[in-house]
Parts: sequence; C-alpha cells; structure tokens
Amino acid sequence: MNLLESTIARISEPDRDAAASARARQDTLTKPRGSLGRLEDLSVKIAGIAGCPRPRLAPGAVFVMAGDHGVCAEGVSAYPSEVTAQMVLNFLGGGAAINVLARREGARVVVVDVGVASDLAPSPNLYIKKVRPGTANMALGPAMSRDEARRAVEAGIEAFETEFARAPFGIAATGDMGIGNTTPSTALAALFTGKSPRELVGRGTGVDDAGLERKVSAIERALSVNAPSPSDALGALAAVGGLEIGAIAGAMLAAAANRVPVLVDGFISGAGALIARGLAPLSVEYMIAAHASADNGHRAMLASLGLEPLLDLGMRLGEGTGAAIAFGICDAACKTLDEMATFGDAGVSEKADR
Amino acid sequence: MNLLESTIARISEPDRDAAASARARQDTLTKPRGSLGRLEDLSVKIAGIAGCPRPRLAPGAVFVMAGDHGVCAEGVSAYPSEVTAQMVLNFLGGGAAINVLARREGARVVVVDVGVASDLAPSPNLYIKKVRPGTANMALGPAMSRDEARRAVEAGIEAFETEFARAPFGIAATGDMGIGNTTPSTALAALFTGKSPRELVGRGTGVDDAGLERKVSAIERALSVNAPSPSDALGALAAVGGLEIGAIAGAMLAAAANRVPVLVDGFISGAGALIARGLAPLSVEYMIAAHASADNGHRAMLASLGLEPLLDLGMRLGEGTGAAIAFGICDAACKTLDEMATFGDAGVSEKADR
Repeated sequence: MNLLESTIARISEPDRDAAASARARQDTLTKPRGSLGRLEDLSVKIAGIAGCPRPRLAPGAVFVMAGDHGVCAEGVSAYPSEVTAQMVLNFLGGGAAINVLARREGARVVVVDVGVASDLAPSPNLYIKKVRPGTANMALGPAMSRDEARRAVEAGIEAFETEFARAPFGIAATGDMGIGNTTPSTALAALFTGKSPRELVGRGTGVDDAGLERKVSAIERALSVNAPSPSDALGALAAVGGLEIGAIAGAMLAAAANRVPVLVDGFISGAGALIARGLAPLSVEYMIAAHASADNGHRAMLASLGLEPLLDLGMRLGEGTGAAIAFGICDAACKTLDEMATFGDAGVSEKADR
Repeated sequence: MNLLESTIARISEPDRDAAASARARQDTLTKPRGSLGRLEDLSVKIAGIAGCPRPRLAPGAVFVMAGDHGVCAEGVSAYPSEVTAQMVLNFLGGGAAINVLARREGARVVVVDVGVASDLAPSPNLYIKKVRPGTANMALGPAMSRDEARRAVEAGIEAFETEFARAPFGIAATGDMGIGNTTPSTALAALFTGKSPRELVGRGTGVDDAGLERKVSAIERALSVNAPSPSDALGALAAVGGLEIGAIAGAMLAAAANRVPVLVDGFISGAGALIARGLAPLSVEYMIAAHASADNGHRAMLASLGLEPLLDLGMRLGEGTGAAIAFGICDAACKTLDEMATFGDAGVSEKADR
C-alpha cells in the first residue's frame, strides 16, 4: 500500500462521543442555549474531529500550495505566470496578505512548491516537492499524467505529515498560489457539480471580458478533449486539474487521517476538496468552509460538498486568506466552549420555566 | 453647554484625505485590486474615522452597559431580572462569553452599571453610574424621565471618556446586559423604522410562544401610552428605551467625538445606534455593524442605519460578543493595509494590460 492509499485507510468517522460531550457542555455555559449560534455548532464539530470534548486549536498552520498552469497559454489570466514564483518569494519574505493574516492569529505559513515553472532556492518555510514545472495546457490534452496527479496529492500529504511531526498544530488551512488556477478549478467544478463552465466561470484575479471568453472556451475544450469522469477523481485531476490542487487535496486527506480540522479557503481549495472527497468521501467531515469566495462557481462547489461558509466578505485572493480569517472564528468557538463559566460555577440563575 | 451637547459639537465628518490615502495604498499592495473584498473597504473607512492613512486598532475596549427593565413585570423574558446583576459579576470574574472573546483579541471589558436593579460592589473594571435601579414598566408609562434619559446617555459618554483618558484604545465596541432589553429595543426599532412590533419582535434569550405574545402586547401598549416621536431621540429613549440603551448611545457619540471606530454589536446596540443617530446623525459614520443578529428586527435596524453587517453567524447573545468577533476582522483589515508589501517592494509583476 502506497502513501495515498495508506492515508485514506487511516480516515475514520469523527468521534461522536466527544461531539456529544461538547454539546452537553455548551448547554451548561452562562448564556441562553444556542445564543452563540454557529460558534456552538462549530465547537461541537471540531470536538468531534479532534476527538476531544474541549479542543484547543492553536497554533494553526496554513499550507500554501504553489504550481503553474500550461493553460495560461490560452490567455485566461490577467497576470503573467512568473507572478507565481514572485509571490512564493513574497510569502517566504512575510509580505503577502496570508503572512499578515496568519501572523495575526499566531499561525505559521508553509509553502509547498508542487509545480512552480521556475526553480526556487531552498528556504526554511518552503517544501520543494516539484512534480513537474507547471502543468501542460489542458485545452490541448491532459494537464498531467495520472502518475503525476498521484504524486501531487502525495506531495501534499508528505508536506502535511512532515510539518505535523516537526511541530504539531491544532488546525490546518489550505491555500493556493498559481497564476491561471481558477481555470482548472472551474473545470473541476463543472465536472463535479454538473453545471456548465459558463455558469461557473468568474474573473479570477480580474480578467477582462475577452479573457473571460477565452477562459470559457479553454475549459470547454479541456473537458471535451480529455473527457474526465467525476467518478475517477485522480483521473479528473490529471485531465483538467492542477498540481497545487492535487497537493491541497492531499493536505486535506492528511488532516482527516490525523484528526485535524482543515479550513477550506476559497475557489481553488474548493476544487481540492472535490478531489479529496472523490478519493475519500469521509474526508469532508473534517473540512470547515472558511468563506464564500466572490468567484462565481464557489457556492456551487460548497453546496456540492454540503459545507456552509462561515464568512462572506467578497474576498477572492486565495493564498489561504479567507481561511486565516475563519481561523479566528474557529478559535473563538473553541475558546468559548473551553473557557466560559457554567451556570453552576458563576451562580447565575437558569432559564425560568414559564 | 452640558456634556451631551458638547460631545455632539465635537463630532465632525471623517477625514476624506486619510481615507483616500488608504485606498491609494491598497491599490499598491501585492494582490489583485479589490481581491480582499470588504477588508479593503473596511480599512479605508477606519482610516477616515481615525484620520490616519494606516490606522492601528489594538488594543480594543468593549463597553458592556448594564441595566434592568420594569417591563419584565409583563412576562416578556425567559430569565428573571436578577440575572442582570449575576451576569455583571460573571463579567467582572472573567467567565462570560464576552470575556473569552475579548481576551482572545487582547481587548479589555469595561462594565458600566447605568441601571442595574440591585446594588453592585465596587470593582476595578466596573463603572458605577446608576441613574436609577431599573426602568419603570413602559407598558404603563414612560420607562424613565427625560432627565434620566439624558443622564443615561451622559453616563455612557463619561465612562468612555474616563476609560479613554486612562488608557487609550484604537477601537471600541458596545455591548449590553439587561434582562428584558429586547422589548424596549423592539419598541425603538418600530418607532424609528416605521414597521410594526409584530414584524420586528423576536424571542430574545428564548421566550416561548405565550411570552412572545406578551412581548408584542407590551410593546404595542408602550408605544400607544407614551406616544414617542422618532424626531425626538431623547424623548423616545425616555418613553420606551432602557438605561443601558442610552449609555450605548452615549459611548457611540463619545467614540465619534474622539475619532474612534465603534463596533455596533447586535439588536440592543442597534437600538442605541438609532438613539445616537437621532442625537447626532454624523455619528453613524463612525459605526461599523459587527454582525446580523438572529433577533428578528435587527436587519431592519441596520437597513435604517445604512450599515452592512460583517458577520452572520446566527448569534443572539449580546454582551458585545458579535462585536468582539468582528474586532478581529477590523484588525485584519487594518493590518493587511499596514503590513503588506507593495508590488514595488516585493518585485512582483503587476497586472498585464491585455
């Protein structure tokens, strides 16, 4: 059994007893029952994931998976491909949005090069696990081979496991960097939701009208040329996916295998989640949808996954930025569960039976 | 000129130049323009409020205003009135939800007794500014006199000013504690939005069907007996308001006078915001709506104020809990504005002109 299969084999149901204990404690805390709304449900879900009735999340870890996309040759992005590598350097230098937002929450940012087109110099927070220097143009043929797709997923698993062994974390988040990657993500969304690319397509980082048309055309051709099947997740990833999308799926599988809640960032992470679900349906139980991206197809993805986003702030940056903000909400949920006084402790009268 | 009038006289327009500088800086940061969505707009708004192109918010301060309500005699709440004082002790002991959530953000919790029915012992984080030991039953006559209403607002101003002088803060939040206080808040919502009490009423801390009917009836009688006018905010507060609602309005006026952004928590704070707006329309420019409360009338209030909530988590606890979570989002907005690298700094290519 290789790494992908052995990781999937470790994924089991969340712990119903821990979740039930968390729910029971919520109902003894000094507040009207249910008055913390989704924070209460979130704390119960995380308790079940972690297998602990009063889970602690800190510190968090954000995995930013980076890769390039051959489909950029079709003119689908407003930015040139070299920005992928430039932004990786920005992440490593601490100047990107994800650095600022993760720092605020005391979370680390780990970057994984699964397929950046250029070579990157070694750096302390960089895992170099390049499967290939960017995908092929999916509008003309498969983005990568099936073996490369597997290796991309396993790169995500390996980075997660290595980092988790080095210094454990209580919650993970997935993020992405890859110029052009809303194009394969839209293709995967179309494949797994059954909706048309035109319905799901968005402007990504801000492509203009003509670019949007090129994007729809590239996705339609990619789906037609490669004819992926939604019942074969690895095949779909190879056909119309991305290397960083595979690594995101891998990190999600590793999170589920290690009973670590994983925040699904935005549109690209949603595509990774669709792949992870295809490989191991139970992995969805370990996912928390951070936010509703401004990118068109994201809500359709989340609906398909059965996940309700915590935030809706019109964000569409990726990198894990939505997840980093949602981290604070998850932490608030767990801290209220853990730290609030009970009615008994505080000598507060309970609800009158009118 | 007394404290209320002198405070109102200090409120002026936000600083358009600082806001414009913040917007210009946002557009140089290493991300597609607009991709941080509402975080960008929020940072620009806060820059204008603070009169600073790169504002810093920490530390924050949450003002929890506490008071009791004579209208509880009508059976409008699921909890007995003594819970107000018990919960104040819980706040001072650090065991309530607001304590946990504020602590997570490094914010202080300050409690102001504007009208708790019982006497409270002095305590370091408690301002005792009791105007009267709870309001009168508004279903039978005015909740308080006009002079008491003014003193309640001034109690909020004084607490804010004293605390701000003692140790400045970069952002304030209003919160409330007062068993029964969704009833006067609903009355104020009806008065200022023109909608009927039945449309706006909610279950507050969880009143049952019969209690909900008693609540509607009490509000209808209060509005009929006292006949407040929406063009007289102080008169409305006296007629169908609450002491803590007045203090919340006062803290909001003081925030605007001191150019401090103020997070409006939920339904009760929304009622305070309606009073503050009535007293000084410009004060709304200094307000940030933290969340959409699960309480029915809250969206109507926010629509009337022209404020869009940042969060929608089904919360309905009050205390400032929604505001404490939104504090993190405001801080994230300001930190990305302040700390992110620019395209020039980071050597990242800008958007291609296709």
